[in-house]
Amino acid sequence: VPIYTRETYEGNEFAGVVTGLAWTAVGGEILYVETSLSKGKGRFTLTGNLGEVMKESATIALEYLRSHAPDLGLTSQSFEKWDVHVHVPEGAIPKDGPSAGITMATSLASAFTQRKVKRNLAMTGEITLRGKVLPVGGIKEKILAAKRAGIKEIIISRQNEKDLEEIKPIYIKGLKFHFVETVMDVLEIALLKQKVNSPLRIR
Amino acid sequence: VPIYTRETYEGNEFAGVVTGLAWTAVGGEILYVETSLSKGKGRFTLTGNLGEVMKESATIALEYLRSHAPDLGLTSQSFEKWDVHVHVPEGAIPKDGPSAGITMATSLASAFTQRKVKRNLAMTGEITLRGKVLPVGGIKEKILAAKRAGIKEIIISRQNEKDLEEIKPIYIKGLKFHFVETVMDVLEIALLKQKVNSPLRIR
Amino acid sequence: VPIYTRETYEGNEFAGVVTGLAWTAVGGEILYVETSLSKGKGRFTLTGNLGEVMKESATIALEYLRSHAPDLGLTSQSFEKWDVHVHVPEGAIPKDGPSAGITMATSLASAFTQRKVKRNLAMTGEITLRGKVLPVGGIKEKILAAKRAGIKEIIISRQNEKDLEEIKPIYIKGLKFHFVETVMDVLEIALLKQKVNSPLRIR
Amino acid sequence: VPIYTRETYEGNEFAGVVTGLAWTAVGGEILYVETSLSKGKGRFTLTGNLGEVMKESATIALEYLRSHAPDLGLTSQSFEKWDVHVHVPEGAIPKDGPSAGITMATSLASAFTQRKVKRNLAMTGEITLRGKVLPVGGIKEKILAAKRAGIKEIIISRQNEKDLEEIKPIYIKGLKFHFVETVMDVLEIALLKQKVNSPLRIR
Amino acid sequence: VPIYTRETYEGNEFAGVVTGLAWTAVGGEILYVETSLSKGKGRFTLTGNLGEVMKESATIALEYLRSHAPDLGLTSQSFEKWDVHVHVPEGAIPKDGPSAGITMATSLASAFTQRKVKRNLAMTGEITLRGKVLPVGGIKEKILAAKRAGIKEIIISRQNEKDLEEIKPIYIKGLKFHFVETVMDVLEIALLKQKVNSPLRIR
Amino acid sequence: VPIYTRETYEGNEFAGVVTGLAWTAVGGEILYVETSLSKGKGRFTLTGNLGEVMKESATIALEYLRSHAPDLGLTSQSFEKWDVHVHVPEGAIPKDGPSAGITMATSLASAFTQRKVKRNLAMTGEITLRGKVLPVGGIKEKILAAKRAGIKEIIISRQNEKDLEEIKPIYIKGLKFHFVETVMDVLEIALLKQKVNSPLRIR
Ligand SMILES: [Ca+2]
Ligand SMILES: [Ca+2]
Ligand SMILES: [Ca+2]
Ligand SMILES: [Ca+2]
Ligand SMILES: [Ca+2]
Ligand SMILES: [Ca+2]
Ligand SMILES: [Ca+2]
Ligand SMILES: [Ca+2]
Ligand SMILES: [Ca+2]
Ligand SMILES: [Ca+2]
Ligand SMILES: [Ca+2]
Ligand SMILES: [Ca+2]
Repeated sequence: VPIYTRETYEGNEFAGVVTGLAWTAVGGEILYVETSLSKGKGRFTLTGNLGEVMKESATIALEYLRSHAPDLGLTSQSFEKWDVHVHVPEGAIPKDGPSAGITMATSLASAFTQRKVKRNLAMTGEITLRGKVLPVGGIKEKILAAKRAGIKEIIISRQNEKDLEEIKPIYIKGLKFHFVETVMDVLEIALLKQKVNSPLRIR
Repeated sequence: VPIYTRETYEGNEFAGVVTGLAWTAVGGEILYVETSLSKGKGRFTLTGNLGEVMKESATIALEYLRSHAPDLGLTSQSFEKWDVHVHVPEGAIPKDGPSAGITMATSLASAFTQRKVKRNLAMTGEITLRGKVLPVGGIKEKILAAKRAGIKEIIISRQNEKDLEEIKPIYIKGLKFHFVETVMDVLEIALLKQKVNSPLRIR
Repeated sequence: VPIYTRETYEGNEFAGVVTGLAWTAVGGEILYVETSLSKGKGRFTLTGNLGEVMKESATIALEYLRSHAPDLGLTSQSFEKWDVHVHVPEGAIPKDGPSAGITMATSLASAFTQRKVKRNLAMTGEITLRGKVLPVGGIKEKILAAKRAGIKEIIISRQNEKDLEEIKPIYIKGLKFHFVETVMDVLEIALLKQKVNSPLRIR
Repeated sequence: VPIYTRETYEGNEFAGVVTGLAWTAVGGEILYVETSLSKGKGRFTLTGNLGEVMKESATIALEYLRSHAPDLGLTSQSFEKWDVHVHVPEGAIPKDGPSAGITMATSLASAFTQRKVKRNLAMTGEITLRGKVLPVGGIKEKILAAKRAGIKEIIISRQNEKDLEEIKPIYIKGLKFHFVETVMDVLEIALLKQKVNSPLRIR
Repeated sequence: VPIYTRETYEGNEFAGVVTGLAWTAVGGEILYVETSLSKGKGRFTLTGNLGEVMKESATIALEYLRSHAPDLGLTSQSFEKWDVHVHVPEGAIPKDGPSAGITMATSLASAFTQRKVKRNLAMTGEITLRGKVLPVGGIKEKILAAKRAGIKEIIISRQNEKDLEEIKPIYIKGLKFHFVETVMDVLEIALLKQKVNSPLRIR
Repeated sequence: VPIYTRETYEGNEFAGVVTGLAWTAVGGEILYVETSLSKGKGRFTLTGNLGEVMKESATIALEYLRSHAPDLGLTSQSFEKWDVHVHVPEGAIPKDGPSAGITMATSLASAFTQRKVKRNLAMTGEITLRGKVLPVGGIKEKILAAKRAGIKEIIISRQNEKDLEEIKPIYIKGLKFHFVETVMDVLEIALLKQKVNSPLRIR
């Protein structure tokens, strides 16, 4: 029996750690996507008890960033010189589906740029290879969980805007929503100019 | 439970994005095939919750283009210097079958040539390794979905022409059909001479 | 539900395209084996929804040709410089069994020599690694299908000759049979001296 | 039928051998994580009848150490020059779950630094890629097993502190608890400055 | 439905073709093991619808020969310069078990030495890595099949000698038996000094 | 149906052949572990119809020896220059479990040192990565089988000593037992100083 631990927002001191929103058997939940880089040769590792579709999301996110390297101040060679590991705690809980796509893209982009992620921000949305952000399910439950965890701003697909109408205003009071169409929209909102302390030097 | 989002046609500004037609449990649907290239060494990645037969279609399409590189103004070495990723949104929906073959071939050809795809065009058809276009099923449902999504022109196999007789004329009014025999027929119709903005330089 | 398209013979303009005979749930059928070569390093790809035994047939056929390269005017190095892809349309229909062995050998030999395949010829038979042609099942149904599709000559194993006695003479009238013992017998019958137009230059 | 052997604490003379706490069908148990290094090229081997999640824990632990190499007096190249093997006896008993994460991290860190592990110490906790220590289940049973085996100090997640309240004081009398938040907390407690006898020279 | 073809002995003109004895659902049967070599880099391919244990037999046989190369007038480098393919017709029939071990060893040895195999000889027996020949089952049925197929001499394990007592003398009249203990015993009996016509030059 | 052959002890003329004790559905049994080396590049092959846990035992044994190479008069490079194959006859019988661990370690050590194994000796015990020998099950049945096969000395874990009390003295009369704690204990007992005839030269 896995232990369901209720998460609370945990700050933005680490590059590559981004808060996502998941929809589980026991309701909405925040989750973290963590990316770690170490010098290597472009190996890509995924952990966290992830299903095939969720692994594909990470692959799409990484490929999107590789093919848009210059937009992030990176070169395509940067990706060949670092081993990339993406992890989604907690290991006892199986996870699947495409809705962590933009969270993974933001996590990877933060790790490669070493830029901080905006505080008290969470997100959910499918990513496509050309950078579109598709709508996902469970918006209501995810938003309730986000609020409970101390989140203040939420990024979702423009196509999920209509889902807010089903939620009583009291539940979303105090939350700021960003409705996005592209991954670049997400990164502009989520990544601060400021780098983390003692940043890695990625070239 | 996957979310079925109803697609509408989305323009042709991206190289490698081509509109296909699918036949799902809930009727016809348009879908996108997206190809992304990044500098690399010929690695081939497929995502989108694809079954074995659909993955084979992509393999056949890529091999067809590799062995006909000069016809597209490419060299066979071009394919060794780029990593190719083909994705079919949406990740939550399993997809299979050979009918996206010509869509994949067009997506790959657009990515490698950086030529724009004709506007408001969709297609469905199986590809063979010698470049024949074979007929596929669900033509009626696919055409209805295409029209609903704003498609104006449709490419299908010459052997699917007879399927149009089963459709009431009112449903296909305003649609232009292209009946093709070979992949080269498809590419001549689908690819514009014009390149996308800021094209990649493929050599 | 896969679409069963009834095939008709389609000419011999392509190197590597050979007509085989299959025995399916819905009776006999002709099928094509297509081989495509592209410059590479000896990679071998198989597509067409093939079962393990059918894939093994292709492996045996390729190995037979590699170890008999000089008999075809090739060198063993030829095989290291080209990537080989063998496909059997149609992707929606699962295919298995050893009976396409000689068809695959002929397809590969035609691709590597760029010699045309004899017109209106079909074949069925298992290949062994030393080049023996073994008998296969479903001869009656296969012959009926071949005739219906416009085939004029058929290659089968000498050990299948006895199966012709079960077929009423009217059904095989106008068909010429070749009873073979070895793959070299097959290639001598099936491959013309003439090369296809604009042949690849294989060395 | 596997043999369940009751373990007792066994000293700290070996680098890379760390005592963990497991929760099995037959109650709590101590277990050992063993890491062995041999000159090589960074190959990573896992044995001990481990499930996917437990294997992922080892992968996360290794990646954490690789990306924090300088904090342990190592270089990232150290990891490329040694083959790493992590084993969890006993082979007949299937093991899974994330709770050995910090035990694996400590085992790997001890092996790479050749530092001794603190005597009579056991631990249990999930590791995340950024180095957080998450709470795990079965704390009560694990503690009883630890005491029975001669353990004197136990490291658990700060978030597991509350689980101690369910245990009668008599059962935990004489045990010292360390409540940790990060893997670095764990390593500071668990690794002595002193190296093992005849240490390997890791550079 | 696979076609069971009744085999008859077929001569010894090919290097690498050796007659084995199998015990199938429909009784005893002779079968061929075929080995083909082509210039390459030591790749090892197995075909013929073989189960895991039968594949292991081929692996053991090849390793035995590699580690005893000088006894066959070969060098260990010989094995690195040739690709080896072992096939057991007929593809439609699944085959498994260790009893083809000595047949595979003889086939490989004949291929690498290009020496002819003794005429009208068949064999059955498990091989071990040190070269012992272990007894196998179905001896009675195998012998009947061998006689029916025109076999004159049979090699079996010394430990299978006792199985002959269960067979009526009339059934084994005219057959010569070789009872062996080691693979070297087998090769001394089975391989002639004479090479095949136009032998490959293996160095 | 596999054939169960009753083994008898077979001498010590081969390097790498060691007698183990197994506990099967039909009682105790001796079995052989065979290791063969051939010049290569450190490839590791396992055969004998082995389950995952038994394969892991071989991996642990090899890694133990690699990381303790100097204790055996070897260098860690020795292991990179030889391909290692471990086989456990008989192929028809599936085998699993950790109890052949020390037998495999002894087999590998004998092969790499070319030292003879003590005559009439058998052993059973799990190996851990740090070289501990853990107790295993079925001791009574294994001992009876060993005696029946002509074994005179048996190595088991110190923790299995208590299992001897359940055996009537008459059954173990004439057997000498060695109770061990570490793999090095095992090797000191099992490996003679004397090398086999015509030893391989391992460096
Ligand atoms: Ca949680
Ligand atoms: Ca998310
Ligand atoms: Ca849709
Ligand atoms: Ca399509
Ligand atoms: Ca058809
Ligand atoms: Ca055929
Ligand atoms: Ca235990
Ligand atoms: Ca633990
Ligand atoms: Ca047969
Ligand atoms: Ca045999
Ligand atoms: Ca036995
Ligand atoms: Ca044993």
